[in-house]
Amino acid sequence: MYRAAVLGASGYAGGEVVRFLDAHPSFTVGLLGANTRAGQELGAVHPQLSGGNRPLVTATEQNLAEFDVVFMALPHGASAEPAMQLLDSDTKIVDLGSDFRFDTPERYLEAYGAEHPFPAQLGSWAYGIPELFPDEISGSNHVAVPGCFPTSVVMPLAPLFSHGLLEPDGIIADALTGASGAGRGGGDSLSFGVIDESSTAYKVLTHRHGPEMERALEMVTETSVSLLFTPHLVPMQRGILATTYSTPVESVGLEDIQTAFDAAYLDAPFVERRSEPPHTRWVVGSNNLMVSFHLDERTNTLVAVSAIDNLVKGAAGQAVQCANLMFGLDQIAGLPREGWMP
Amino acid sequence: MYRAAVLGASGYAGGEVVRFLDAHPSFTVGLLGANTRAGQELGAVHPQLSGGNRPLVTATEQNLAEFDVVFMALPHGASAEPAMQLLDSDTKIVDLGSDFRFDTPERYLEAYGAEHPFPAQLGSWAYGIPELFPDEISGSNHVAVPGCFPTSVVMPLAPLFSHGLLEPDGIIADALTGASGAGRGGGDSLSFGVIDESSTAYKVLTHRHGPEMERALEMVTETSVSLLFTPHLVPMQRGILATTYSTPVESVGLEDIQTAFDAAYLDAPFVERRSEPPHTRWVVGSNNLMVSFHLDERTNTLVAVSAIDNLVKGAAGQAVQCANLMFGLDQIAGLPREGWMP
Amino acid sequence: MYRAAVLGASGYAGGEVVRFLDAHPSFTVGLLGANTRAGQELGAVHPQLSGGNRPLVTATEQNLAEFDVVFMALPHGASAEPAMQLLDSDTKIVDLGSDFRFDTPERYLEAYGAEHPFPAQLGSWAYGIPELFPDEISGSNHVAVPGCFPTSVVMPLAPLFSHGLLEPDGIIADALTGASGAGRGGGDSLSFGVIDESSTAYKVLTHRHGPEMERALEMVTETSVSLLFTPHLVPMQRGILATTYSTPVESVGLEDIQTAFDAAYLDAPFVERRSEPPHTRWVVGSNNLMVSFHLDERTNTLVAVSAIDNLVKGAAGQAVQCANLMFGLDQIAGLPREGWMP
Amino acid sequence: MYRAAVLGASGYAGGEVVRFLDAHPSFTVGLLGANTRAGQELGAVHPQLSGGNRPLVTATEQNLAEFDVVFMALPHGASAEPAMQLLDSDTKIVDLGSDFRFDTPERYLEAYGAEHPFPAQLGSWAYGIPELFPDEISGSNHVAVPGCFPTSVVMPLAPLFSHGLLEPDGIIADALTGASGAGRGGGDSLSFGVIDESSTAYKVLTHRHGPEMERALEMVTETSVSLLFTPHLVPMQRGILATTYSTPVESVGLEDIQTAFDAAYLDAPFVERRSEPPHTRWVVGSNNLMVSFHLDERTNTLVAVSAIDNLVKGAAGQAVQCANLMFGLDQIAGLPREGWMP
Repeated sequence: MYRAAVLGASGYAGGEVVRFLDAHPSFTVGLLGANTRAGQELGAVHPQLSGGNRPLVTATEQNLAEFDVVFMALPHGASAEPAMQLLDSDTKIVDLGSDFRFDTPERYLEAYGAEHPFPAQLGSWAYGIPELFPDEISGSNHVAVPGCFPTSVVMPLAPLFSHGLLEPDGIIADALTGASGAGRGGGDSLSFGVIDESSTAYKVLTHRHGPEMERALEMVTETSVSLLFTPHLVPMQRGILATTYSTPVESVGLEDIQTAFDAAYLDAPFVERRSEPPHTRWVVGSNNLMVSFHLDERTNTLVAVSAIDNLVKGAAGQAVQCANLMFGLDQIAGLPREGWMP
Repeated sequence: MYRAAVLGASGYAGGEVVRFLDAHPSFTVGLLGANTRAGQELGAVHPQLSGGNRPLVTATEQNLAEFDVVFMALPHGASAEPAMQLLDSDTKIVDLGSDFRFDTPERYLEAYGAEHPFPAQLGSWAYGIPELFPDEISGSNHVAVPGCFPTSVVMPLAPLFSHGLLEPDGIIADALTGASGAGRGGGDSLSFGVIDESSTAYKVLTHRHGPEMERALEMVTETSVSLLFTPHLVPMQRGILATTYSTPVESVGLEDIQTAFDAAYLDAPFVERRSEPPHTRWVVGSNNLMVSFHLDERTNTLVAVSAIDNLVKGAAGQAVQCANLMFGLDQIAGLPREGWMP
Repeated sequence: MYRAAVLGASGYAGGEVVRFLDAHPSFTVGLLGANTRAGQELGAVHPQLSGGNRPLVTATEQNLAEFDVVFMALPHGASAEPAMQLLDSDTKIVDLGSDFRFDTPERYLEAYGAEHPFPAQLGSWAYGIPELFPDEISGSNHVAVPGCFPTSVVMPLAPLFSHGLLEPDGIIADALTGASGAGRGGGDSLSFGVIDESSTAYKVLTHRHGPEMERALEMVTETSVSLLFTPHLVPMQRGILATTYSTPVESVGLEDIQTAFDAAYLDAPFVERRSEPPHTRWVVGSNNLMVSFHLDERTNTLVAVSAIDNLVKGAAGQAVQCANLMFGLDQIAGLPREGWMP
Repeated sequence: MYRAAVLGASGYAGGEVVRFLDAHPSFTVGLLGANTRAGQELGAVHPQLSGGNRPLVTATEQNLAEFDVVFMALPHGASAEPAMQLLDSDTKIVDLGSDFRFDTPERYLEAYGAEHPFPAQLGSWAYGIPELFPDEISGSNHVAVPGCFPTSVVMPLAPLFSHGLLEPDGIIADALTGASGAGRGGGDSLSFGVIDESSTAYKVLTHRHGPEMERALEMVTETSVSLLFTPHLVPMQRGILATTYSTPVESVGLEDIQTAFDAAYLDAPFVERRSEPPHTRWVVGSNNLMVSFHLDERTNTLVAVSAIDNLVKGAAGQAVQCANLMFGLDQIAGLPREGWMP
């Protein structure tokens, strides 16, 4: 059994990492890191988990290099420091945060409006979508797990871009997310009174997952990509539904698109193409991605509708899937392929 | 007091018409029409309404011409027949259905895939958005109230089109609706087990409100309009949030857009522009429309986010607002300007 | 028009008072008091209300005696001080809080575990259930509006107790409430992630509305009453459903109970007895109470199921109903008798 | 691997049985029985499950005796016939339905208002609560899995009754359930428009789980038990919260009760006593039961608050737990001890 530390275990994504590792045949959780909740027991913040009497500890006081792998489920900006301290060790790092997702200091600056504290690191981390970048992930000790929205948008489009089937600009990604995407806490703005029975758009034009989508799509094509992303908050706990509009290049039809997609994910155990738009509940709880494609010939617009669980394929499940590759394990080890309904 | 008949009173929109008319200073409800529920009392289908012991009756057996106004809240295709029987009378008709929203048999055929049964009627009905077409509504005995989605998309864009600020093609309207948009019934597909905690897209490329939006926008501009509409179902009872993407013509900025919008709705009691995206709950229960505009200079895309209550401004409230104009009353008479929160 | 001040206008109940008074034929809102939100505009905390640019002010800096009536929708303990300052004026007070609901310092101490700061006041305030204590309310300048749960439990049982139909002990009141009962705020414990899709019991054995129910029932009977109250939090915004178990005295049957109830509320415009258990949505949005009675002959237990909107009949609506009586107005003036569905 | 058939695989409980068996180390699903949905694929009714292309078949045309075990997740009354056909075989039966839960024809008649078609069978089936009746279940080929509500009420009280700590009459069981308790379908009465944001009581005095609770408690005590049960429907998918009121015998205190409970479930992997009332979400998705006890000394009433997932510990999970015992396997094999949050 490989020994794992989970930093940010008190959060939603961290709790899911613990849940998957507890049931994993090859990993065991040896450390549960937390910040303000350090000193509490796991069960106080995750009453749904077994082993609730395990302590949450302050990770900075631990020797993380003793672990085979460290999962970091920390707020933006908080992964860089502990990651740097592990660079000289053999410990593998799976970062669920956004610190190492970009490949250049310039992109990072553009997306986050601040200089990266360790710019030399950028570009040396694998981008953790196992279906798209398996060799990079397998061959790296450091993987940056994508954001939830980028996972939902990039996976449907990447095979189409790599085959040159889509125009690289004018893409519109319009996505819905459940409230767990905002993490625990949030105060009044995430109260039941505000979220329940209501929908809104947020961070219009400014959400950082937009640039991340562009960068990820550029990794699979030759040209620069231009995309406009709008997230919406809808009253459900989990799930992302992304509706992405793009323009097929001349003479490309729906069958070309479906064929390219199917070929790319032929052996992907978590990817399923459907003929009708998926419902988010069909994938919630599982590490699955479901996609449907619709081509409007009148306006020559491809509509892709994709669904994932933001905390599983969009975070913790994908992180464990990456770790499976990094340790040479079966990519499905310990991961759910069945969702929760009703 | 003007005497009103409400056909389809057992449905959601019909029930809202009854609610507004019961509180209206100038209308009284004299007939509650229903089909399968005829013979029941109003309270059996609308337990939230007062006067629950009023009977639901089969409208086809009534002399509708005795009423000053007939509100028709019927399924698609069911308005045409009773409307035709009233054409020779002085009775005004406010049709919440889709039968008379198009101006030509060709458009109707394209949208609905069937010949209109009374093609000569098309074009002679006013399109019932009081803020945009007040004179047509005031001067007509026959008003076709728009669909819920078209109201949410057309109202934000119409002033911009009439001022020539937007390119007429490449528009994408991406909207979320609560489950009441599908009306009562629906069987398993609208069960709590299916709708709750889940989101999906539906009728992708085929929803008939897309062509209706194009036709409505063409009424305020000179050129033909091309628009792609995608509706989504999210787990809430009421409310529509529409996020619409369009392209400003050269050198048009955000201020131009806001100025044109504000000028158009200067005296509109139910329209409010916000600087941040509205939440649907801010308007649910009221006849209000809230809109925010966001201009992405990087891709030269205007993002309009609008919110209405699909059953009020999107149906029954707008119907009563039309009736107010048709009878020369104050347009706000009997209509709520305050929503329901929490 | 009588001029009203609303203290605590930024809260849920205060916002509802504003909503009702804005639509009221005889009251106008002249002051919107708030504490931490003073300085903000009404629309910042109640985006659903019209007149959103009205300022929230610090009430303690105002001369409240200039108003005809002051509605106090304040946290427990916060009403006593401003109320005392108004005692020498002609200003009427409608207190939605719990400070003046008990009639003796002993009862107050038992329920709240603290001495009342102005014990001489206790007993001189009317208890604001208009259907039960109309003369006391009409004749008083100071009314304490009951808690939401007591309203839902006391109104069904009071006529039965006043007719001596029920044993005065062994009563169990088991109630469900939506999350708005906890008011705005609440932090993580009222977040969507915690409330949605979950139910729990809270304040078991210790909720202060239990003693308030006993005291209220004792006001209509001669003997002391013993009652055990358990509140539950269920995932909805509004509404209380109370299921109350009690024991009929010998030879009392269901018809006796229904007859006593019907007679007591014969002229009550907001009270309706149903044969089947009401759903909370049937009354949400309105000032109505619905009740059904069920007698289990096997165990000789009367089951009463009652529903109200906790913010309307359980708070703001009842407050305005009381004010109507205090000013000699029709008790239904400005109050909704139609609820919100769907 | 033991080969299992699942009858009623298209329903909610049946789908959960399939989910658990698919992940089980010792069972494999060999037949998926359905009625109206026979001919469809599993994925058409359970899109969340993997292996969605497996066919649903008409069970009556199959030789069920070829299987090692048959799980029956059928509507009331539908289990008896297929069960009788298997009586002469070695095939074990785990019936999730209500046909064989009672021990005498008289009780069955009282609860269901009809004669049992095979009265000789009653009493020969084990009652499937593994923590309470492990030997009966292990030693039997025929197990009747309890109803969801009885599981939630009987498990907290049974150890207290077996120790003689509670009075056997005057028990009130007041429970909340999510909508999945009603199964798939249900038409308008289970539509999102009716269930969402609303609560109600249903089948007051007449729900058949009341007599089942009495019978189950009588199995662990010497005297007859009298209990009044009221179920409530609240707007969530899964979960039962039961609040049960009973009377401790003289001089019994809270500690006696907790000690008896803890001793009874010392080795029970799915049972946890909490000091505070559990939230249903703490157990949803898992096979766990959580309970808290509260003793009101003022009225000498014990309040027990218990939570289960109605489809797991209340149905499919308990069924698999029974099967584990029947085949001599570890009782936790294949069953989730971790729930779903958020």
